[in-house]
Amino acid sequence: MLPRGRPRAMGAAVLLLLLLLVVGFFLFGRDPDYGLGTTATLDEDPYRSRNLSASSPQLLLPPKCEVMLHVAIVCAGYNSSREIITLTKSLLFYRKNPLHLHLITDAVARNILETLFRTWMVPAVVVSFYDAEELKPLVSWIPNKHYSGLYGLMKLVLPSILPPSLARVIVLDTDVTFSSDIVELWALFDHFSDKQVVGLVENQSDWYLGNLWKNHRPWPALGRGFNTGVILLWLDRLQQTGWEQMWKVTAKRELLTLMATSLADQDIFNAVIKEHPHLVHPLPCVWNVQLSDHTRAERCYLEAADLKVIHWNSPKKLRVKNKHAEFFRNLHLTFLGYDGKLLRRELFGCPNQFPPGAEQLQQALTQLDEEEPCFEFRQQQLTVHRVHITFLPHQPPPPQPHDVTLVAQLSMDRLQMLEALCRHWPGPMSLALYLTDEEAQQFLHFVETSPVLSMRKDVAYHVVYRDGPLYPVNQLRNVALAQALTPYVFLSDIDFLPAYSLYDYLRASIEQLELDSRRKTALVVPAFETLHYRFSFPNSKAELLTLLDAGSLHTFRYHEWPQGHSSTDYSRWREAQAPYSVQWSADYEPYVVVPRDCPRYDPRFVGFGWNKVAHIIELDAQEYEFLVLPEAFSIHLPHAPSLDISRFRSSPTYRNCLQALKEEFHQDLSRRYGSAALKYLTALQQARSRA
Amino acid sequence: MLPRGRPRAMGAAVLLLLLLLVVGFFLFGRDPDYGLGTTATLDEDPYRSRNLSASSPQLLLPPKCEVMLHVAIVCAGYNSSREIITLTKSLLFYRKNPLHLHLITDAVARNILETLFRTWMVPAVVVSFYDAEELKPLVSWIPNKHYSGLYGLMKLVLPSILPPSLARVIVLDTDVTFSSDIVELWALFDHFSDKQVVGLVENQSDWYLGNLWKNHRPWPALGRGFNTGVILLWLDRLQQTGWEQMWKVTAKRELLTLMATSLADQDIFNAVIKEHPHLVHPLPCVWNVQLSDHTRAERCYLEAADLKVIHWNSPKKLRVKNKHAEFFRNLHLTFLGYDGKLLRRELFGCPNQFPPGAEQLQQALTQLDEEEPCFEFRQQQLTVHRVHITFLPHQPPPPQPHDVTLVAQLSMDRLQMLEALCRHWPGPMSLALYLTDEEAQQFLHFVETSPVLSMRKDVAYHVVYRDGPLYPVNQLRNVALAQALTPYVFLSDIDFLPAYSLYDYLRASIEQLELDSRRKTALVVPAFETLHYRFSFPNSKAELLTLLDAGSLHTFRYHEWPQGHSSTDYSRWREAQAPYSVQWSADYEPYVVVPRDCPRYDPRFVGFGWNKVAHIIELDAQEYEFLVLPEAFSIHLPHAPSLDISRFRSSPTYRNCLQALKEEFHQDLSRRYGSAALKYLTALQQARSRA
Repeated sequence: MLPRGRPRAMGAAVLLLLLLLVVGFFLFGRDPDYGLGTTATLDEDPYRSRNLSASSPQLLLPPKCEVMLHVAIVCAGYNSSREIITLTKSLLFYRKNPLHLHLITDAVARNILETLFRTWMVPAVVVSFYDAEELKPLVSWIPNKHYSGLYGLMKLVLPSILPPSLARVIVLDTDVTFSSDIVELWALFDHFSDKQVVGLVENQSDWYLGNLWKNHRPWPALGRGFNTGVILLWLDRLQQTGWEQMWKVTAKRELLTLMATSLADQDIFNAVIKEHPHLVHPLPCVWNVQLSDHTRAERCYLEAADLKVIHWNSPKKLRVKNKHAEFFRNLHLTFLGYDGKLLRRELFGCPNQFPPGAEQLQQALTQLDEEEPCFEFRQQQLTVHRVHITFLPHQPPPPQPHDVTLVAQLSMDRLQMLEALCRHWPGPMSLALYLTDEEAQQFLHFVETSPVLSMRKDVAYHVVYRDGPLYPVNQLRNVALAQALTPYVFLSDIDFLPAYSLYDYLRASIEQLELDSRRKTALVVPAFETLHYRFSFPNSKAELLTLLDAGSLHTFRYHEWPQGHSSTDYSRWREAQAPYSVQWSADYEPYVVVPRDCPRYDPRFVGFGWNKVAHIIELDAQEYEFLVLPEAFSIHLPHAPSLDISRFRSSPTYRNCLQALKEEFHQDLSRRYGSAALKYLTALQQARSRA
Repeated sequence: MLPRGRPRAMGAAVLLLLLLLVVGFFLFGRDPDYGLGTTATLDEDPYRSRNLSASSPQLLLPPKCEVMLHVAIVCAGYNSSREIITLTKSLLFYRKNPLHLHLITDAVARNILETLFRTWMVPAVVVSFYDAEELKPLVSWIPNKHYSGLYGLMKLVLPSILPPSLARVIVLDTDVTFSSDIVELWALFDHFSDKQVVGLVENQSDWYLGNLWKNHRPWPALGRGFNTGVILLWLDRLQQTGWEQMWKVTAKRELLTLMATSLADQDIFNAVIKEHPHLVHPLPCVWNVQLSDHTRAERCYLEAADLKVIHWNSPKKLRVKNKHAEFFRNLHLTFLGYDGKLLRRELFGCPNQFPPGAEQLQQALTQLDEEEPCFEFRQQQLTVHRVHITFLPHQPPPPQPHDVTLVAQLSMDRLQMLEALCRHWPGPMSLALYLTDEEAQQFLHFVETSPVLSMRKDVAYHVVYRDGPLYPVNQLRNVALAQALTPYVFLSDIDFLPAYSLYDYLRASIEQLELDSRRKTALVVPAFETLHYRFSFPNSKAELLTLLDAGSLHTFRYHEWPQGHSSTDYSRWREAQAPYSVQWSADYEPYVVVPRDCPRYDPRFVGFGWNKVAHIIELDAQEYEFLVLPEAFSIHLPHAPSLDISRFRSSPTYRNCLQALKEEFHQDLSRRYGSAALKYLTALQQARSRA
């Protein structure tokens, strides 16, 4: 740095500061309305100063660490929950301030979003939930024709339900995407006059002009009116102004002639503003670029250098017809497919603002030794994956005392199993999918275009986002298991097709065996395999036995891993007419039906190997009885070996790491079950001496 | 918009403009050196004006459409070519101006990047290539110990090789990532005094202080010196200053005592600046945040609100040890995994600046009818995929007259085939991979951690980036085929393993059969299949026949699609001792060895079905002779059906669309081959009447 110019530059800076204070007062002091046209000539300045500001612009920007920005969003149902995540990603990508999200949700959205934000672990983000159910009575008296329903109207009552300590809040629709830092929007509060309480962008369609079609009678509005997809709400001033009284009076009066709102809250906001124009502070159009079908947004965005917020306010959403749609879609798709874990980054240069558990996790991760041969395993075990439960619309099964949910997990390369699985299992399923954010969108498209899958609402899909090189098989199983809603679960694998009758047969068996009175029972579903791509699935045990005798079917992994299922005792099963009890033996890993509250899978087993074996040991240690069902079966279909199994086979390190995991598992087992766990260790040692 | 405030605001704006002109002159007029400290007090202003600027900041920002920004980058080899793409993505993500990239490349990088940019089709991006080979003599006299080698020094000679019309250019290292709009960096040229010619950020390590270790003798520099990862070069002024003479004199003098440069061009830049400090314009530190191992960058970035450019200038790159490494890595990974096709967006509000072919393509796409049942097929056929040829380091095979390259294509779910394929085929391969940007990184990790794959340099991997719902199988095959470098190609599929001896046997057969003199021959490699995951691969034809008789092997798709290979005549092959000729018949789709200049695959066939059949028809129509090799064989391994084959089986629309494609193919065939093509149509009609 060459210091020669400093004194002169300092003098200039002081002078400039003084001048700006004068000009600023002149311009914003008492009559602060400004529109697009009036600001144009101001722009001489920002250009130079913006570039200069690169070095240290923190002086007048809201301090990046301290100022918490508050955002309120109403969100209900499965699809809006997906939308809000994309919106949040765009917010987080550009933000430099702590954020407090105030989410007004129904039970569905709350369930999804609580899990998501807990597992997302984004530093400097606080999330509060408010029960939309409680707000319904406040707005349900307003007839509304808009597709957002009652939820659309809830923005009107935010001032009464958000905490009184909250002075200002930005309210967003779920269908907006940010392409800039929200702090710039927040800063516009400073431009409000004393009397202004609501910041809004002008509506970018001719709707409120009332000339769209013959006898089109919109609600009253100032000119084109304002759009409520993005609102700056000055909450405490609204309270003082008597907002609640004000909008209700206006709404009731207009409803006398207009019968219902067409655009939900927006109609009422506009009617109030028409009456009290001093309340509104108009925002620059780029903060709510509205992409409805007949948008006039082009007037705004073609001139702008920066688009700040895009609003997909057509019911067609991304499919809206617009000659620039491709451009806007790309901005949106950026965040749709953006890997959310990259947003776990801290706020730079701010004191740590870690969410619960994140700091300990970070410490554990940094203590790992990158040079250690099993480093990848250790790292994968510690990884907290983002989890988006019930990614697609879902109807929980009606409560039935003997119902069974099929539980399994998969990744993209097994999607094609889903249709067949749906044909074989007519009951509820809880499936965990290990996907990238981008793959989750492909999966969505896959389900939507599959007639078989799109009609099934009793299949719950839970997306666990990919992170790390090893497949976290047991973490996935635990997510699917935790989300099963029936009293019993069938713990299966995605490449197995159950007998067509299995769902009915299991429910009948559970009832007959009175399983509820003997909770610690694991019903064993014998496993078979076919090596043929195309193959005619047996309709009965008799047909299955014929295929077995003909050599077209085999007992599962008979050649490669007989110990996995030998305890099931296939020869006894051939003849069995009634359920029979079997004993655990080393490496046993049958597919079982157990009560939903069964032990979880051990998440230390990542990648290939021993992940089910450990779970069955756990069941046995907790004294579950294994009961083989005489008419139950399930058949494994052929597929190429997974990447992890290939690595297991080709890498001695991989096998050594798995061995280390087994040993640690046994140590834990001894700690928890004492001498009773000795038999598992003995079995392991015998297996090792045989190998 | 409420117009009340306008006259007053206008007056204020005019006043502000005048004042700024005065202040601007005072500040920047004659003695424009400024450092970090001096600009601090200026920042009162940017905050307010920046927010106002949201509505129409184009007045003083360089006009977004017209001003072309020039960027020069030296890039050599496979790994730097991957780096530069990530850098380019970060540039494009934030930019709002047309860009002209000046790439100084070796032959490898040019080959890769020419293909990439041609297929990327980004509007408003011009790319010019300069041959690094020609620059080598200009710098090869300088001994250099830096890992960048000669290429690192080439930045010194840019003023002499870039076009004389180019007044200013930003020079970047390949290992930088942008996190802001490059126009803000370009705008800093305006802050240069008349004499300043080079804009640089201070070095953020203590290297040039010379106290890092005992007897550490760095090149001379001003204080910490400057880093040359990001340079603003004022080219015409450099020429006028006699730059070429200047740096050579300095370098020669210093080399008398220092023997070699340690940090390539950077040492010489610093030595020149030490001697002529008036030449340098110091840039704010955020424009080159240097993440070397012992960086002092924290002093810069902890205070800054915005990081503009991150520089991975440690030889460890992303693995650098830095307590904020995770944060910086996330910024970098954002662009590493970013879907490059989203950057095809136009410059908003600018007249169209489409790259060659893009406009026609756009028109064709918009003419498609979204409601048409085969819309997805039409769209997929028109899609131009980004192509990154030779994604990983590759040694082209030495020219040999009978050499054969195995050509195939795959996606992520077949990666695990690669190791086995490498064991079975010791010769060159050209493989197209259909991946997302994120998957390409997983693939890179997979190859790097596989001992088998990482030692093979004769396998060329070409990444074709995913776009659209249908698998563009023939486009992939054409990419792999076009990149094969040997006179012959074996057109295989990824789920086939060739006989261990096949590579040698094919080369011997080509030689014996004197194929060069009878170019239109297709050698048929008979295809078999196993239904077993684990299976002991036959070492000879005799062993294969034993397995065939035992029922552990089958001729390929014998049950499902016998017509695909019936012409090969397996019973004749059993006995054959010499190659024999076979005739085409309907639906024949053997795996063949042909000259590299064989017909391309028909890209209209996307998804499942008929993609190879059409190619074999093309060969037959061009009068290729099909010659079955008696000792050649290849075996298909089992895998789950692909998504596309599942859709083909379950969707009548899918099958109808495929039928439509076939018919169009036949129409084209008739146009090109006249009545000779009649036999294919007849065969198709016969097949339909049978169906």
